[in-house]
Amino acid sequence: MALLVLKFGGTSVADIDRIRHAARHVKREVDAGHKVAVVVSAMAGTTDQLITWTKEASGSPDRVEYDAIVSTGEQVTAGLLAMVLQEMNVSARSWLGWQIPIKTNSAHCSARITNVDTAALEEYFKTGSAAIVAGFQGVGSDDRVTTLGRGGSDTSAVAISAALKARRCDIYTDVDGVYTTDPRIVSKAQKLTRISYEEMLEMASLGAKVLQTRSVELAMVHGVRLQVRSSFDDPEADQGDGNMDRPGTLVCDEEEIVEQQVVSGIAYSKDEAKVTLTRVADRPGIAAAIFGPLAQSDINVDMIVQNVSGDGRYTDLTFTVPMHDLERALAVLESCKKEITYEKLSGTSDVVKVSAIGIGMRSHAGVAAKMFQELAEKGINILAITTSEIKVSILIDSAYAELAIRTLHTAYGLDEV
Amino acid sequence: MALLVLKFGGTSVADIDRIRHAARHVKREVDAGHKVAVVVSAMAGTTDQLITWTKEASGSPDRVEYDAIVSTGEQVTAGLLAMVLQEMNVSARSWLGWQIPIKTNSAHCSARITNVDTAALEEYFKTGSAAIVAGFQGVGSDDRVTTLGRGGSDTSAVAISAALKARRCDIYTDVDGVYTTDPRIVSKAQKLTRISYEEMLEMASLGAKVLQTRSVELAMVHGVRLQVRSSFDDPEADQGDGNMDRPGTLVCDEEEIVEQQVVSGIAYSKDEAKVTLTRVADRPGIAAAIFGPLAQSDINVDMIVQNVSGDGRYTDLTFTVPMHDLERALAVLESCKKEITYEKLSGTSDVVKVSAIGIGMRSHAGVAAKMFQELAEKGINILAITTSEIKVSILIDSAYAELAIRTLHTAYGLDEV
Repeated sequence: MALLVLKFGGTSVADIDRIRHAARHVKREVDAGHKVAVVVSAMAGTTDQLITWTKEASGSPDRVEYDAIVSTGEQVTAGLLAMVLQEMNVSARSWLGWQIPIKTNSAHCSARITNVDTAALEEYFKTGSAAIVAGFQGVGSDDRVTTLGRGGSDTSAVAISAALKARRCDIYTDVDGVYTTDPRIVSKAQKLTRISYEEMLEMASLGAKVLQTRSVELAMVHGVRLQVRSSFDDPEADQGDGNMDRPGTLVCDEEEIVEQQVVSGIAYSKDEAKVTLTRVADRPGIAAAIFGPLAQSDINVDMIVQNVSGDGRYTDLTFTVPMHDLERALAVLESCKKEITYEKLSGTSDVVKVSAIGIGMRSHAGVAAKMFQELAEKGINILAITTSEIKVSILIDSAYAELAIRTLHTAYGLDEV
Repeated sequence: MALLVLKFGGTSVADIDRIRHAARHVKREVDAGHKVAVVVSAMAGTTDQLITWTKEASGSPDRVEYDAIVSTGEQVTAGLLAMVLQEMNVSARSWLGWQIPIKTNSAHCSARITNVDTAALEEYFKTGSAAIVAGFQGVGSDDRVTTLGRGGSDTSAVAISAALKARRCDIYTDVDGVYTTDPRIVSKAQKLTRISYEEMLEMASLGAKVLQTRSVELAMVHGVRLQVRSSFDDPEADQGDGNMDRPGTLVCDEEEIVEQQVVSGIAYSKDEAKVTLTRVADRPGIAAAIFGPLAQSDINVDMIVQNVSGDGRYTDLTFTVPMHDLERALAVLESCKKEITYEKLSGTSDVVKVSAIGIGMRSHAGVAAKMFQELAEKGINILAITTSEIKVSILIDSAYAELAIRTLHTAYGLDEV
């Protein structure tokens, strides 16, 4: 008998039929003798309706009230799932953030969990009942309801898993696992049986939307084993505790991964924009003059490439910012033109960042070199490069995105055979 | 400077425009220098959606989870109204039942308030801000969310008014006050400026849906002055604290009512059904044999008429039950036919109860006599009669309902001149 945490996202509880289907997954684990905590998101669409109302109510909605309003979506799902489980003769009750309590700081709309008090839940598990926890929400020190920001229910699930020392945290979602790359682009993409936290973090931060970055970070810190699996699976095909032929993808410590590939996956992000400044005076302090004002405007700069000009007096500078910040970035740089002194400012969101990710890179050289060579052979121009210990990223024209992804997927031996 | 409690029902907060209109009423009182607590219902329609989900989830929804789910409607409204007020530069925040806390017993779905802790609210009022309280909800001793049953937000408002010793509790609704009778039936019906708690209780229990019976009882016990008024009024036409030409109807102690009519209003209820048993053996214990089983089945018997037959051995018995209990009542009596011994059992819901209500009856005789005479003149047959200290009620065929109500309204001098 183990303690398992199951998490169901919005599409997995979108209506009562879906909630009933989710309940069958819960019942299977309860019947297998496990202690089960279930974390639920709001029914798909509910949160959108609530957010629409807040926008109608105020041009700049109060963040505290926003949390009081938006957190109701998960409260409703938790109650409904508890009801459905009772109807299936599974003893269950809903738990709200303040009832557990899940304590957070008071950064409303993106609060951080400071403590999950497990005393009440552990007492409750002695009754053999399932705990249905409203995800995404907690309670601040002033007893106001807080929410955890986008993907917050994943974070709730991981935090509860860590606090309860769960054997595993099963993330039920609308995909059946983590793939070597986007299967819509590469039909030979393979589902990964296991992936390390570090790799998953890079995947998530590059736009693989399966898990929220923060929840993966939290899982890594606390060693919570995450299993990503599909809620659309037949619940009874599993014999309990994930004993299926295709149990999704386990996100775990790299030591649990026996056969490690050098590259585990190819990720990409279209949420990038490129900014170029030409003929910038190349003098000390110029980087501060450019990137200081951007940082002050909370614009995150990622890749930076500098081309020193022939005579050494001028330089061209290219860097990337999040696509939704492009207009603001251009405006900031326009307003600082005098301080920076440049000839031309241009920006485009017609770029994509493609990354090869793998913890095996730590011990294997040549991953970057192979990437450059493969792309050169296909005539794809690299606009910028960044590397980390387990990642090589390049920026290219978005027209070449699919070609580059397919090429690299094959080159690193990831195609399904 | 006084403390006022304002309560807005579901149609008064049905969408953001209505919430904004309600907020203008709140702003007026805050601007007039009052401490203001606002109690809100769920947006009209929201609770219905939530209830539909609970019914889809379970054939017999768990009452505790039902409360967790259904209470979210008021939580949303409270947050939205607080947002709208802030947008109008009125400092405000939402308060949930457990945050105040409003303590109740654990009779989920129809919980009774046991205590309203005022310490946090009173501390909060020192900031000059308006408290927006989610109505209908409280918290049980086990920290689970409870709801107060139908019309529970009225009860919340009165309980909070009593606890805070409010000068007045303004019930904003979709009618502009309490009338001498239903204006849809009698066009000359007049709005009452004042009505006593006792009269309002009789009105409410007879189907005048303006206020829930329980909230009026609570107001009477604690001496909370209730003002029923329309949320559709122009908020700025009032100069604060109800100083308008037509400020609705004040429900208050009879001592506050200077010119008391003998009859204040004519109420009616179509929610009645008549049951008749003919040729019942007239022996000791027969009443117990009939009404005992009905009471055991939680069927409330109201008017009872017994006609002794000529030879004294048999009697005919007529009584009323709530219309929705008619089928059950007939089934219960059918099953007890042997014990009761009667010849024929019949039932009809084709009846209406019409009542004249007025605390002036205590000191004025002849109200009932006048009623019988007026109805006799119109050829209306009276099927049953009950009287109380401040009420005379008769049961008649529903075909005569409107004629009877109009006749009595005129006879007791209630027509607008």
